[in-house]
Amino acid sequence: MTTHEILLAAQSARQPLALASTDQKNEALEAMAVALVAASEEILTANRQDLDAARGKVSDVMLDRLALTHNRLADMAKGMRDVAALPDPVGQILHRIVRPNGLVIEKTSVPMGVISIIYESRPNVTSDAAALAIKAGSACVLRCGRDAWRSCNAIVQALRKGLVQAGLPETAVSLIEDTSHASANELMTADGLVDLLIPRGGKGLISACVANATVPCIQTGTGICHVYVDKAADLEMAVRIIENAKTSRPSVCNAEEVCLVHRDVAKTFLPMLKKALVEDRIAAELPPVELRLDEAAAAIIPGTAAGPEDFDTEFLNYILAVGVVDSLDAAIQHIGRHSTHHSDAIVTADETAAARFVSCVDSAAVYVNASTRFTDGGEFGLGCEMGISTQKLHARGPMGLAELCTYKYIIHGNGQIRGGAAAKLQTPCG
Amino acid sequence: MTTHEILLAAQSARQPLALASTDQKNEALEAMAVALVAASEEILTANRQDLDAARGKVSDVMLDRLALTHNRLADMAKGMRDVAALPDPVGQILHRIVRPNGLVIEKTSVPMGVISIIYESRPNVTSDAAALAIKAGSACVLRCGRDAWRSCNAIVQALRKGLVQAGLPETAVSLIEDTSHASANELMTADGLVDLLIPRGGKGLISACVANATVPCIQTGTGICHVYVDKAADLEMAVRIIENAKTSRPSVCNAEEVCLVHRDVAKTFLPMLKKALVEDRIAAELPPVELRLDEAAAAIIPGTAAGPEDFDTEFLNYILAVGVVDSLDAAIQHIGRHSTHHSDAIVTADETAAARFVSCVDSAAVYVNASTRFTDGGEFGLGCEMGISTQKLHARGPMGLAELCTYKYIIHGNGQIRGGAAAKLQTPCG
Repeated sequence: MTTHEILLAAQSARQPLALASTDQKNEALEAMAVALVAASEEILTANRQDLDAARGKVSDVMLDRLALTHNRLADMAKGMRDVAALPDPVGQILHRIVRPNGLVIEKTSVPMGVISIIYESRPNVTSDAAALAIKAGSACVLRCGRDAWRSCNAIVQALRKGLVQAGLPETAVSLIEDTSHASANELMTADGLVDLLIPRGGKGLISACVANATVPCIQTGTGICHVYVDKAADLEMAVRIIENAKTSRPSVCNAEEVCLVHRDVAKTFLPMLKKALVEDRIAAELPPVELRLDEAAAAIIPGTAAGPEDFDTEFLNYILAVGVVDSLDAAIQHIGRHSTHHSDAIVTADETAAARFVSCVDSAAVYVNASTRFTDGGEFGLGCEMGISTQKLHARGPMGLAELCTYKYIIHGNGQIRGGAAAKLQTPCG
Repeated sequence: MTTHEILLAAQSARQPLALASTDQKNEALEAMAVALVAASEEILTANRQDLDAARGKVSDVMLDRLALTHNRLADMAKGMRDVAALPDPVGQILHRIVRPNGLVIEKTSVPMGVISIIYESRPNVTSDAAALAIKAGSACVLRCGRDAWRSCNAIVQALRKGLVQAGLPETAVSLIEDTSHASANELMTADGLVDLLIPRGGKGLISACVANATVPCIQTGTGICHVYVDKAADLEMAVRIIENAKTSRPSVCNAEEVCLVHRDVAKTFLPMLKKALVEDRIAAELPPVELRLDEAAAAIIPGTAAGPEDFDTEFLNYILAVGVVDSLDAAIQHIGRHSTHHSDAIVTADETAAARFVSCVDSAAVYVNASTRFTDGGEFGLGCEMGISTQKLHARGPMGLAELCTYKYIIHGNGQIRGGAAAKLQTPCG
């Protein structure tokens, strides 16, 4: 089927999903999880074909992301059951107003309709995204990377069997057949057919969406996360936080990339930082962190001289840019210019400084005395997540089930009409 | 100043506004209201120049929208004070989570930063939009139509005096000097300088934003609103609702444009509708409604034959497209295809039919037994509004102060780091 045909077919799932009860959706998720495991052999065969085709062409990290095993399939099935266990985000009355004229106005959470997700080579995204979309009452149209297509297709075929067994249309979950740029562009401009597009991928994909998308889109962006060590910081705490933020998992978006240190404590702090991130790690046979130092930091400890681009790079590796700032406000300004507005932290014992940092740093998550690594739906206690939004409209930070819904105003009356002076007031419609 | 220079200058207002207390913002709104009235002569002089230049070139309706008087200025000042009286939308803790590790996570409403509004020839939008933006803690960059520029500029100069008197930067409110398409396009693509763009205008402007905007944008769309008269409707109520929805103010976006009638009641209902909308109005010397009838309706009452475009037109006039449908689901389908997702209503005494209509009609406001004319921030009891959103992300329906804010997660810890098994969980960053 063409991309357009798949999008048209997905429309037919809107109404059954909008009318589905919580139990029906949860039964469908259970049936999908069962069908996924039942199709293990087909899925693993398809995955071996993907791996054979990819070997030699992509890095070992990519091959590992692509590889499925019985254990990973079991984890995927468990993930779907975890979503089933979450409260239904649809039908929540977010705000209820009873007007003097008797109108009852209920701002009610409702499904988006059709959610499309563009992703790359992790086959497990297929079942995660499908489960979240179904629970949120929306059909999902998935578009994976070429390397993973056979695997994702086998997974979608299994999920569809589960859907049909549960009495929901199989068009509630679809996979785009075309893996060229053309299909991604078609999804970005499928006005009226895609209610929400979530690109999950590298900078190139996100930029293409910003530039070309005419459908509603949520950017799950890159993370250039900062930790600022204030002059009133507990320096031991600052070292522990930075070590965690930088090294516990350097390849993810909530890892720290930049450390800023207040001038007053730089001479004491930077040698402590170097000891923890370089010397102690070498002694423990762990990968040391390469410190890229601005001029003021380089005058205190040895390390690589930072180029200006080092303060605008998502390294996703054991590399940390380190700069010295003259004041709290200088740190805030630096972060304003260089942050991707994902997660930024201050370490300080000064509550006034913390409050100013929190008000002035314009990021999805702003931390006081904690590691940036906590920005995550699970760590926030929000349940599963579809990604982490770095934009300001609709969803910011971890996107859970609530953020995959929209709302409508449902108004019940008994014949009310707008009258008298009220009828003459201008409604500013445009 | 160029558009770019104005946008850069607006950035300097972000931090003072983000740090401003509720009292400071309310004092600024009061000072702005006082300054507006104090500058009446300058504003009315500028307005006369605008009117002189526009006369003969634009319609009388447009001239009326453009014209200012002492009374209208007093209304504008009152509007600003009304905004001051509303609760502060900034700093609300929307959700508070205390994690087992002691992290306190507060999802907190915060200002957008810089809000830009593109509008046309109503000078009162200048003070309305400025007041809402300031109360929401954001700077606003206004871009009015050419016909109104002198008036809007005089208003902005007055508002800036008030801002400065209250100790806030005058760059918190700016007016773009260039009124050509170039400046609108520049605002649509001012990535990093505009946090939210609200186009308020006709179809052309909205389409240009959808196609070209790379900054976050909320469409305040057109309204092709439907009233469906179910077979279980109280027909007298249906007539009253339609008369109100169509004729109480035909030029606004929440006015009805299409009436759908269930076949079973069409023969009884359509003559009642014609009597109320045509004959009774002529007798009362009110403008009659032109009924544009599909084939089935035309077989029952006389009227103009509807062309297919009549079911996709925002008439904004005393014209109503009338169609007969075979079932509730046919009405839902028709609305799905033709509605602009603004406001749609069912008239029925059947609760099951009402529930199905409400679930399946995908519009910002869905009414049961009431007029579509109520879709309005004031009528919903939400206070003032910046417009009515017809999109699904972020804001849907009337956009009040809450919808002009975003949120961030503010996390307070005492040195927490992410550890153990948690550190190994994949955060799906893209």
